[in-house]
Amino acid sequence: MLDMEKIKKITVKASGEYDVLIGEGLLDFSGELIKNVASPNKIALICDDVVDYLYSSKVIRSLERANFSVVKFVFKNGEKSKNLNTYAQILSFLAQNKLTRSDLIVALGGGVVGDLAGFVASTYLRGIKYIQIPTTLLAQIDSSVGGKTAVDLDEGKNLVGAFYQPSLVLCDITALYTLPQKVFNDGMGEVAKYAVLDEKVYSLVSGDVCDLFKLVYLCVDYKRKIVEKDEFEGGLRKLLNLGHTLAHGIEKLSGYTVAHGKAVALGLIQIMKSALKRNFIDQQTFDGIMNVINKCVGEVVLEYSLEDICTNATTDKKINGDELTLIMPYGIGDCRPVKIKIDDLWGYLA
Amino acid sequence: MLDMEKIKKITVKASGEYDVLIGEGLLDFSGELIKNVASPNKIALICDDVVDYLYSSKVIRSLERANFSVVKFVFKNGEKSKNLNTYAQILSFLAQNKLTRSDLIVALGGGVVGDLAGFVASTYLRGIKYIQIPTTLLAQIDSSVGGKTAVDLDEGKNLVGAFYQPSLVLCDITALYTLPQKVFNDGMGEVAKYAVLDEKVYSLVSGDVCDLFKLVYLCVDYKRKIVEKDEFEGGLRKLLNLGHTLAHGIEKLSGYTVAHGKAVALGLIQIMKSALKRNFIDQQTFDGIMNVINKCVGEVVLEYSLEDICTNATTDKKINGDELTLIMPYGIGDCRPVKIKIDDLWGYLA
Repeated sequence: MLDMEKIKKITVKASGEYDVLIGEGLLDFSGELIKNVASPNKIALICDDVVDYLYSSKVIRSLERANFSVVKFVFKNGEKSKNLNTYAQILSFLAQNKLTRSDLIVALGGGVVGDLAGFVASTYLRGIKYIQIPTTLLAQIDSSVGGKTAVDLDEGKNLVGAFYQPSLVLCDITALYTLPQKVFNDGMGEVAKYAVLDEKVYSLVSGDVCDLFKLVYLCVDYKRKIVEKDEFEGGLRKLLNLGHTLAHGIEKLSGYTVAHGKAVALGLIQIMKSALKRNFIDQQTFDGIMNVINKCVGEVVLEYSLEDICTNATTDKKINGDELTLIMPYGIGDCRPVKIKIDDLWGYLA
Repeated sequence: MLDMEKIKKITVKASGEYDVLIGEGLLDFSGELIKNVASPNKIALICDDVVDYLYSSKVIRSLERANFSVVKFVFKNGEKSKNLNTYAQILSFLAQNKLTRSDLIVALGGGVVGDLAGFVASTYLRGIKYIQIPTTLLAQIDSSVGGKTAVDLDEGKNLVGAFYQPSLVLCDITALYTLPQKVFNDGMGEVAKYAVLDEKVYSLVSGDVCDLFKLVYLCVDYKRKIVEKDEFEGGLRKLLNLGHTLAHGIEKLSGYTVAHGKAVALGLIQIMKSALKRNFIDQQTFDGIMNVINKCVGEVVLEYSLEDICTNATTDKKINGDELTLIMPYGIGDCRPVKIKIDDLWGYLA
């Protein structure tokens, strides 16, 4: 039996209102939890081959126990699958299995499947419901919440997508216990970002012991506050892009071999250095944050020149006309947008 | 100079509010009309090769006169281009030309380019503004208004897309004067549909002379009323699907060689016959409508069995679970939704 008292619930009030449930062992009860929010005939479960091996039979068993009929689409693990080819394959799979507007998509896995399956859900038949079951730290604290869906183009990351909120998010903390170190660290790059944005996260990760349950809760709750105020990224939500403009440049330069979270940490370090140089923050704050970044992701080494990174960051979708908005830290829990001409980015940061 | 007094304006109040301008010679003034609603750096003009030959230089001249910088993407004319391949090509084209969120897409041409470019606009960078300049009757009276965007899959028509409203629609009536008869008739299939839905359109097309300016105005205004009440097709908007479930079956059976409007007329005739048989309408109403359909599209012959059409109509996206909503006429200006089990469709209509 599922003990609802041990589950934390965060309700996100965006264009669609939905719950994020955080707890242990939720995967085994996904069927009954989904039944509370949707009653489709069919569920299309979408995951990559690694997650398929680890979790899909467990989830399918639970879904079938709850009387859902399930079809499954599996793609190859990795950011390289997050493209328009896989997108087209999934759409055809759904049409061939005759999924209708009253059916449901379940995205099981990390950030890639969440972004990809969410984009499929937002556009198949002009939109059907979807549910996120994030199994990585990065997906649980960040990408599964807030309704940003996307695929990559050769020209850049996340250049195609939609704002489309899920109907439910199930964060099973037990999935995090067995993550490979590299994948776990990837999520910790985003945690480092939250630590700069939010004092509560900063305190938690500065301490000796970091409770994962609490960490996921605090990050999701911070993101909830932002998304509720600015779902479509008119202004405030840009804060969540802290470190990301440079991160996208780094990822692109590496041919997407550098993981997203690591790239965010690297981008964040550059931004911190620039903030220190410009006296936005003092040495003590800088050291504190660098300490947190080190704790989160360990030693990371930047292998590209800042100039190259800046050049590759300028196909980023945060650009408007010839300007981009860079998020700069002025202290823990105090980050602000700065508008910069594209051509001045390197000069501003160097 | 543009004489604004000779232009009819219909304002659509949906999730985005926008004007549909109807007039003669608007193509020559597209630049200054667009300038009133948007101030992008760049415009990506999207059209097919036929429209490119006819109108693009005229439109580009006007856009450049208004100080827009223009890039142009041309694809091969025809429904076969409305697929995920062309979609992906356009997205890469936009990224390579570094279009940003403050730039603009202009869809110039018929229903195919409007659906395709609209879908691109709704998903590139998670959404940028777009403007419809419909040059066919079908696009002016129907597909350019209301924000339905889509591409086809091999499995069926319009199975992928988004609800995404344009920022402006420019209907230049002079473009209709030179349409090939086949393309003009294609639009008249949709006019026949409006004639059943709306008494004003019925009166106009029943008369001896049908003023095109007035026809476009009445159809767009009817559609406006529906879209304002039910943008996302929760209920009322389904009325606009009159004849369409069968039409999609016919188009699919023909490998999309039967034009959409002709398929709609054929579907409409089957629906009328069924409505007569079930005494929803009397013989006089039936004859009146058949007369209008004949006037609009001429003699049309159904080359497929109703059973085959029904089988091929059931991948239609109007299906929910194992049910679909069929729109049935009870009189001119009085159509109603009827819910039917997929498996009963043929039995219901035969």
